[in-house]
Amino acid sequence: MIVLNGGSSSGKSGISRCLKAILPRPWINLGVDDLIDRLPPSLTDSGSGVAFGQQGEVVLGAGWREVETAWTTGVAAMARAGARIIIDDVFLGGRTDQERLRAHLDGLEVLWVGVHCDPEIAAARETARGDRVPGMAAGQAEVVHKGVVYDVEVDTTHTESLHCARTIAQHVD
Amino acid sequence: MIVLNGGSSSGKSGISRCLKAILPRPWINLGVDDLIDRLPPSLTDSGSGVAFGQQGEVVLGAGWREVETAWTTGVAAMARAGARIIIDDVFLGGRTDQERLRAHLDGLEVLWVGVHCDPEIAAARETARGDRVPGMAAGQAEVVHKGVVYDVEVDTTHTESLHCARTIAQHVD
Amino acid sequence: MIVLNGGSSSGKSGISRCLKAILPRPWINLGVDDLIDRLPPSLTDSGSGVAFGQQGEVVLGAGWREVETAWTTGVAAMARAGARIIIDDVFLGGRTDQERLRAHLDGLEVLWVGVHCDPEIAAARETARGDRVPGMAAGQAEVVHKGVVYDVEVDTTHTESLHCARTIAQHVD
Amino acid sequence: MIVLNGGSSSGKSGISRCLKAILPRPWINLGVDDLIDRLPPSLTDSGSGVAFGQQGEVVLGAGWREVETAWTTGVAAMARAGARIIIDDVFLGGRTDQERLRAHLDGLEVLWVGVHCDPEIAAARETARGDRVPGMAAGQAEVVHKGVVYDVEVDTTHTESLHCARTIAQHVD
Repeated sequence: MIVLNGGSSSGKSGISRCLKAILPRPWINLGVDDLIDRLPPSLTDSGSGVAFGQQGEVVLGAGWREVETAWTTGVAAMARAGARIIIDDVFLGGRTDQERLRAHLDGLEVLWVGVHCDPEIAAARETARGDRVPGMAAGQAEVVHKGVVYDVEVDTTHTESLHCARTIAQHVD
Repeated sequence: MIVLNGGSSSGKSGISRCLKAILPRPWINLGVDDLIDRLPPSLTDSGSGVAFGQQGEVVLGAGWREVETAWTTGVAAMARAGARIIIDDVFLGGRTDQERLRAHLDGLEVLWVGVHCDPEIAAARETARGDRVPGMAAGQAEVVHKGVVYDVEVDTTHTESLHCARTIAQHVD
Repeated sequence: MIVLNGGSSSGKSGISRCLKAILPRPWINLGVDDLIDRLPPSLTDSGSGVAFGQQGEVVLGAGWREVETAWTTGVAAMARAGARIIIDDVFLGGRTDQERLRAHLDGLEVLWVGVHCDPEIAAARETARGDRVPGMAAGQAEVVHKGVVYDVEVDTTHTESLHCARTIAQHVD
Repeated sequence: MIVLNGGSSSGKSGISRCLKAILPRPWINLGVDDLIDRLPPSLTDSGSGVAFGQQGEVVLGAGWREVETAWTTGVAAMARAGARIIIDDVFLGGRTDQERLRAHLDGLEVLWVGVHCDPEIAAARETARGDRVPGMAAGQAEVVHKGVVYDVEVDTTHTESLHCARTIAQHVD
């Protein structure tokens, strides 16, 4: 299992697609955005699920935590059943989020990858993609790495996703 | 857990979105298409994964079976951990596929839903959406229901997704 | 030139895709949604362009009118230069909008098509697609046809897009 | 009018979105990809329209030329009617394509912008986005600039789209 942690617009999705293209064995990717896309209106239009503030801040309610825990339990079960999974996550709570995820992945071989990006550059990419609430990239760029411990760290500020993926791939069997 | 089984363009996704909108408690949806979208190039460009023929036929290889089994194991684990999940599936193997899925969902409360649609109407909708290999809709419309046992059956030929969803919702707590 | 006028979720896009698939000569489609997708943030985030109200109402500002006039002038020029174009529009102003468009299309052979759909059914389809502001479908279903004069009228309430397209195609050389 | 010319995956779309976000007056963007997306099956499934080879090469037929000429005539008419338009193009024929486009834009104020990107980096970004035929980026990176004359040239190899857009914006009133 590979866990990519980084802020919005830091380049996790691109790295994930490159990893799938270059790794010799088949990997699938699953991310927190996939779960958000599948939430019902009751969890996106109310305060109990996921909400995005005007400055791009993300507010998570009790309803989100409940479904996210079940989701993560299931993703861990997929990995235990033999699937090679790249998780694409945003540790808004930094180390606390890593510890919670680590507990779920107990017994699995996990490569923890930090995906860094200069906040200003991430914000520029957020403008260029045009499909995210402005402010998320800069707001998350550094806080998501607070206290998190990694096996590999890459930085997309001056390095292409494909090259970052090659660095990561060297740590994967 | 709700399992929607029907051919391509039979209306499963629309019913699934309606269920999420009308059911009082939060449900998420996960489907076979979600897994296909996450496969690596090595499983979509070769014979070992998923391939689409010129007449819309779907060919599944050993690589697909392996990852699908792990995926299903994980989805079942999500449900056991408390998530309410609508599965959107296409039983190309009819009853055999249902039995395999049933084994994975052991111990869970499952509502089996058959989503029917006249083959000609499904083919017409395939043309109207324009993003599927022509032929899939007609080819799958009837074969996916072969020998499958349902708790509820709906038919989208003359009934809107929202109305089908209301029928299904009456069987959900 | 074919002009399809109907409310949100009435089925215009599906009919348009079917027309492109069945008409013997090559047609392209262009619609008001294409222009909205290309607007800059300054026209979507302020009152001067296009804004969507909480009940699905659409508010058009002076900035929108200006760019829409130039856009329509250009689409008419494409048609005069030989392109076969299916326009997909929503006459929020009913007859007034038709007269304005008719003036732009002066000298061109135009087939005016009314795309009707029962408001309740259109609203059900809006829920099923899940990507529109709820309320648009019902709010626009009837008002867009007010005083508009058509060469052909179709109704998607009980008829598939492909069949509506076949009806329309009989009026096209 | 702003014309951005560059190979596939060179960063034109990102620059275009940034220009729309930073330019004080409202601009819309229109590109060759928009036209391709609107072609009927008869022009994408046969040799007479647009076809993509296995190495990412693009083959254009007589049917494409016809519709493209009409499209360009219309886009020029939009600009003459007052719309500020960013065209996003790929001059597969280099200088010849520029001359053809220049003839259509006669009388309009045009800023010709070359969007360069190192072929290897463009190919890496093609892998990272994962939605283009592999080979297009490298194949087009240099040939599209052959003999083309520019007012401004930017290079996305080591510069973000937003910064390239700022450079371009200095040449726009």
